[in-house]
Amino acid sequence: MGDLETKNLAESHAMVGGYGAQSYAKNSSYQRAVVNAAKEMVKDAIADKLDFKTLEFDASNTFKIADLGCSTGSNTFIAVQNILESVEQNYLNEHQNPSTLEFQVFFNDHYDNDFNTLFKTLPPSRKYFATGVPGSFYSRLFPKSTLHFVYSSYALHWLSKVPQEIVDSKSPAWNKGSIQCTGFVKEVAKAYAAQFKNDMECFLNARAEELVGGGLMVIVISTLPNGIPMSNTAEGKIYDLLGSCLIDLVKMGLISEEKVDSFNFPLYYPTCEELEEIIHRNGLFSTERMKVFAPIVPGEMTFSAERSTSQIRAVFEGLMKEHFGGEFIDQIFNNFTAKQLEETFLKSGVLKNHNKIDLFIALKRIMN
Amino acid sequence: MGDLETKNLAESHAMVGGYGAQSYAKNSSYQRAVVNAAKEMVKDAIADKLDFKTLEFDASNTFKIADLGCSTGSNTFIAVQNILESVEQNYLNEHQNPSTLEFQVFFNDHYDNDFNTLFKTLPPSRKYFATGVPGSFYSRLFPKSTLHFVYSSYALHWLSKVPQEIVDSKSPAWNKGSIQCTGFVKEVAKAYAAQFKNDMECFLNARAEELVGGGLMVIVISTLPNGIPMSNTAEGKIYDLLGSCLIDLVKMGLISEEKVDSFNFPLYYPTCEELEEIIHRNGLFSTERMKVFAPIVPGEMTFSAERSTSQIRAVFEGLMKEHFGGEFIDQIFNNFTAKQLEETFLKSGVLKNHNKIDLFIALKRIMN
Repeated sequence: MGDLETKNLAESHAMVGGYGAQSYAKNSSYQRAVVNAAKEMVKDAIADKLDFKTLEFDASNTFKIADLGCSTGSNTFIAVQNILESVEQNYLNEHQNPSTLEFQVFFNDHYDNDFNTLFKTLPPSRKYFATGVPGSFYSRLFPKSTLHFVYSSYALHWLSKVPQEIVDSKSPAWNKGSIQCTGFVKEVAKAYAAQFKNDMECFLNARAEELVGGGLMVIVISTLPNGIPMSNTAEGKIYDLLGSCLIDLVKMGLISEEKVDSFNFPLYYPTCEELEEIIHRNGLFSTERMKVFAPIVPGEMTFSAERSTSQIRAVFEGLMKEHFGGEFIDQIFNNFTAKQLEETFLKSGVLKNHNKIDLFIALKRIMN
Repeated sequence: MGDLETKNLAESHAMVGGYGAQSYAKNSSYQRAVVNAAKEMVKDAIADKLDFKTLEFDASNTFKIADLGCSTGSNTFIAVQNILESVEQNYLNEHQNPSTLEFQVFFNDHYDNDFNTLFKTLPPSRKYFATGVPGSFYSRLFPKSTLHFVYSSYALHWLSKVPQEIVDSKSPAWNKGSIQCTGFVKEVAKAYAAQFKNDMECFLNARAEELVGGGLMVIVISTLPNGIPMSNTAEGKIYDLLGSCLIDLVKMGLISEEKVDSFNFPLYYPTCEELEEIIHRNGLFSTERMKVFAPIVPGEMTFSAERSTSQIRAVFEGLMKEHFGGEFIDQIFNNFTAKQLEETFLKSGVLKNHNKIDLFIALKRIMN
């Protein structure tokens, strides 16, 4: 086994830690809605597709679950509890003496994730042995054939890094003046898509080694419909608006144009077709489920610029601080709130996740 | 399986986190010397006593190591690396194709240990999959039969809690006016010894479940010779001196006498005989090694009151802040430094670990 991965660009975007007003834990209600919407689908996938008769199981009789990109906050605990209960129910149906089954849960996220907060908020009544695993899920994180269930919700749209060409002023893929893959410049979109493909292949290959034969992997991910550019979606529009707040700082002479040009979100939303193609070519998993689902965010259908800012800040503050320093962060996000209030596409009263398609995917590791 | 343990008194004494001048990471050179002294002994124990022919090993071919009470800093990484290399060498000697062996290392400490720092300082070139496990090692931390090697250095002298009688003014074991088990009051010593025995039994029973048959456990622990009270050792004298700094605050009217009376170190140094008796009665491990060893602290044989304060503060600050609040901490430790400078038993030029005996113990989990 070679050296394991070291801290690099890929590690730069943990969510805001702690429990404060600006923490991810307090600003992840959309992600929570996704967890809830996925609950029944996870339950069904386990009931239908997890077969203890063929699952590779060692003498310790321990069912091992990993949440990859768990962040902090209670979303991961809710998801894990649901998986555990579903597996236990399934085990109960197939076995006489289900009390002998033990669970070990591996919570994974970047090195700079706030594991201290994660550990301190572990549910006291949990029925599993909890462990934290720091590192990028685009490389190996676990020994061979040791996991039975992998879960990754709203994490795989984070690339391991911004594609190199994007920040190269000599490349046709130079993403000047934008902080994301808008979908409007063909070369930029191609570079982002290639990075996503490469990352996703690394992800699938690593998991194929770590999952036992017959083990399941559930992926929840947002996708774009074919032909719809990111910047034509509500989320894309909002990111462009955040980008314009950075341009404002340039106009005010507070930061350089180069500084903004060299900043890009390591974020990509594939189409469903792109995903299917990558999974198919990889060939190590069978696709057991691929379903569209629509999370319902309770009580938050009315748009609030402040809440929108809080939610986006909880996710991107770390990334932006690393690039721009902490000095202008408050100014950027105050401006961002003001700009959101002015935007007519947000003023329509109800913010729908215009065009974005949330996918629930259940894969099974093919037996060797 | 019932509910796992929740946060309680036992969780209140993590070392000072981070990398600062007062962190445990920067103030654990004595513990480092212990690690170094134990290195060869660990190597020998693995070479002689770890038998891959009889060791229970699952299909994943993963060797699982746990460091219980790892804290932060590089000591745990050095210890783990030494274990890994020794196991690999042993495996190499017994097998044709050693490249298939993978390692998973579980770093354990209390919930309030600084896992964020631990994870960020993981050696980039490590050849193992790293995980963090929060919680008290006096309860179960891992699934059944999943560990091959357990290591615990300078951790088991920490009790799960201060014995109840010690802080009960109506009990003959009330430890009025002292912050430790001095060894001078029979009832107090008895209560501390009973707590240690109880904790140690919990520790052995939990590990017996978690270790595979033939798995090894190395314990490094300081002990007292039979009949020598703690307060007649250099360490005991220093703790009494720290206690007198608290009494000074009472005299100055800054804290109440009750506040000091209710504060006690959850710390106990057993005799070698006490330990042997507990291990023997437990009956789930065979004692493969029990050796005295003397760590040599390089370049630190000359006493420095400032360094002594830093080292003791890194260990006890968290515990004291929880009880007394942060207000008087600097004052207490400044006073403590001044008092150490005045003490003749420290002035002798060289501080030896008067009377304390460091023990290296290697146990093997008896096959079921």
